[in-house]
This record gives sequence, structure tokens and C-alpha cells, in this order.
Amino acid sequence: MSLTAGLLTVSSSRAAGDAEDRGGPELERFAREIGAEILAAEVIADDRELVAERLRHLSDEVGCALVLTTGGTGFAPDDVTPEATRDVIDREAPGLAEAMRAASRAHSPHWMLSRAVAGTRGRTLIINFPGSPKAILEAGAALAASLPHALRLLRGEDDPHR
Amino acid sequence: MSLTAGLLTVSSSRAAGDAEDRGGPELERFAREIGAEILAAEVIADDRELVAERLRHLSDEVGCALVLTTGGTGFAPDDVTPEATRDVIDREAPGLAEAMRAASRAHSPHWMLSRAVAGTRGRTLIINFPGSPKAILEAGAALAASLPHALRLLRGEDDPHR
Amino acid sequence: MSLTAGLLTVSSSRAAGDAEDRGGPELERFAREIGAEILAAEVIADDRELVAERLRHLSDEVGCALVLTTGGTGFAPDDVTPEATRDVIDREAPGLAEAMRAASRAHSPHWMLSRAVAGTRGRTLIINFPGSPKAILEAGAALAASLPHALRLLRGEDDPHR
Repeated sequence: MSLTAGLLTVSSSRAAGDAEDRGGPELERFAREIGAEILAAEVIADDRELVAERLRHLSDEVGCALVLTTGGTGFAPDDVTPEATRDVIDREAPGLAEAMRAASRAHSPHWMLSRAVAGTRGRTLIINFPGSPKAILEAGAALAASLPHALRLLRGEDDPHR
Repeated sequence: MSLTAGLLTVSSSRAAGDAEDRGGPELERFAREIGAEILAAEVIADDRELVAERLRHLSDEVGCALVLTTGGTGFAPDDVTPEATRDVIDREAPGLAEAMRAASRAHSPHWMLSRAVAGTRGRTLIINFPGSPKAILEAGAALAASLPHALRLLRGEDDPHR
Repeated sequence: MSLTAGLLTVSSSRAAGDAEDRGGPELERFAREIGAEILAAEVIADDRELVAERLRHLSDEVGCALVLTTGGTGFAPDDVTPEATRDVIDREAPGLAEAMRAASRAHSPHWMLSRAVAGTRGRTLIINFPGSPKAILEAGAALAASLPHALRLLRGEDDPHR
């Protein structure tokens, strides 16, 4: 299987060049670690319509098997990545979001403030990762063992009844 | 209280007779174990409209207090049992789904791939169980202590403020 | 920061004066403990439209930073507080509900029956607390460390990228 991935950093300040994108590179490290070929990596503003549009683009036109976002999943007024993700997925996968929060629980009392969402759009799996590099690392460690299997199931390549 | 139950195996291959339904019998064992009288047991294809229609039938016409499904909650392209369940419930019960995933966590790194949903439709409680007999057993063990109380509350028979 | 709070006890029997409101006072104790100034405290019936209307009022007109409800989150036929909450929030915060259920897990096998929801409406954070005073105490203990930070983020006062 060729595991292809698209990365989306959602942050108005980073999109404007006012802050360094440290989440994107960490997300890229994680994607490479699970064997993904990166097809696209974008930095965009915290705009619900725009985030939804880029998620659709990476899924439907670029055809990524996996789309990972970083940023915009918290309580700041402009954090709308989960809402944009819900706008475009057709099947939600709440267990992946629960697994990421459970993983960050050991590291931060604020684990419960993550509003991350995960789900599938056609044959693409979209997952909201946290914004900070450290939290991305923790979330990635929690998902790494199951993601390849999930992606094979989604492609119809693994027998779900084994 | 008469605890009545309807069972729904959701699997295109089993509905077509191409595979043995091992989930249904395990679900039946669990339902009997918590004292349920089985009013109906069906095997149907992975079709969102059809699953929703049978859930409505078992709830509204057959009048089951409890409707349990097995199958169709994962990442395969035709897994749509959670979506069909969301289509028909009027109140979601996320804690039951969380409890099932938490229970399978000790047994499989793929616990997080369950997209199971639970909720109420009128006086009926609908719960998506996993597809494999072993996972059904684990999920059932997690829910057994609370299900009878939940069903009595739903029937207005237990005082919620005790 | 001035942390302002509105409290809503949702219970037809307590609204009718047929039962004592023990949840409201416990909720008030919790709100004061985290430094909140209570702007309003109401007791209303289990009516989805009414609950939604009061949540909008406390958020938009009274302008509370935090609105806490108690009651109506279980399986009784008239428990509709989570549905009314979903009707009015624009961003869901599932981690807060997960944290409350996880906290009650150590105390009751029925932790999984809580259907509580949390989320933001504009600059207001709305959280469904349990109905029983004991469970309110446990849920409050689970959230206390993160709520002030969540409210500062929501007001745009904390840097989410620190």
C-alpha cells in the first residue's frame, strides 16, 4: 500500500508569517514515521470555510489517504478546525479523538480542552492533531499502532472480520 | 419489568449467506444473560437506509426495550451502522460507547477504531455492539451492570433522583 | 478577569416545588470555589425549548462567561438537557464531558449513563453537570483545574500557543 498524506497547519498568525510553524514539521515527522509519502503541506488561516475547502481539496482532488491537521482545536474564539472537519466528513471516528485525549491526560491537566475530531471522507481519513509539537508527538504515539490498519480497512484491503 | 430485545446483525456477506453469523448468536447469549426476551433477530446487508428502517421497525412496531446491533461499526467502506443509528435516535448516550471502547482497550490496540454509537429512540435503547464475538463479550461485560437500570429509567420505572 | 456564572437547575419536580433543589446549591458552591460571581440562578422544568431559551438568555443577554446546568442528563423520558444544550452551542467540547464521566467512574457503575454535553456559545462556556450533589462535587473536582484556563482562552486572554 502506498500511504499518502496531506498536512494542514491551521493558524492565522502562522499563515500571516507572524509566527513560526512548529506544528507542521512535527506533523510531517510523524507522517514519515508511519511510512507516509507527503503529497501536500499547507499553512492556512483559522477560517471555517477555508479549512473545509482545503480538507475537501486534499481528500478529493489530491486523493490523500490521510489528512492531518494541527491547530485550531482549542477554546480560542477563532478555533474552528473541529467544526470545519465535521462539515466535510461523512463518518465520524470518535475513538481516535478519545485516544488522543487519553494520551495527553498523563502529560497535561488541560487534556480535556482538546476539541479534536476525526473521521472519514470517502476513502480519506482526516484527523485533527493538537497544536503544540509536544502534544503532536504524544497524540501520534497513541495512534501509530492502529492507523495503518485503519487505512487498509478504509481502502478495502484488510478483512474486518478476521 | 419485561425486558424485550431485538437483535440486528449488519453484514452484507452474512446476509448473502457467504459467511457464518457468529456475532448474532453471541449477542443473543448476552441479551439472555441480562434477562431479555428476544422478540426478533435479523441479518441484513450494510445499507444505511435498510439498517435505519429495521431499527425503526424493531423500536416502534415490535416495541423492543433494547435493540442491539453487531457489525458495521469499523472503517471498511461499507461500515455505516453508526450513521444509520444516528439517523434514528433522538437522544445520544455517548457514555455507553465510551464504556465499550474503554473495555476493549485492555484487549486490543484497535479499540480506538470502533465507531459505535448508542442512544434512545422513544422508549427503546439502541446500542451498536462490535462485530467479533470476542469483542461482543468484552463490551457486554462492560455494560451489563448498568443496562437494566438504564432501561428502567427509560421506562420511567426508576427514580433518577434517588 | 471577572468570572461570571449563571446556574440552571433543570427539573420539573423541583420547578413545581414538589422536591427540594439540592443540585443548585451544590453547583453554586462549586462556582464560588473557582472564583465565579453568580449573576443568575434559575430552576426550570424539563422542557427542551425552555432549557434552550434560558441557555440563550444567560449567554447572550446576561452575558455569563460560564453557564452550568444540573439535572436532565440521564435516561428518564423527560431528560433533554443535553439536547437543548446541543441546540444552542456553536462549538462542542467533548473532552469536558469525557472528563466528568471518567471522574465519576471511580464512584459509580452508572458513570456511563451520563449523557452530559459541554460546548461554547459565543464567548460563553456551557457545561451540563450531573443531577446529584455528590456527582456534582466529583465532576467539579475533575474540571476545576482547567476551567479558568478554558475561560481565559475563550475570552482571548491566554495565548493558546504558549
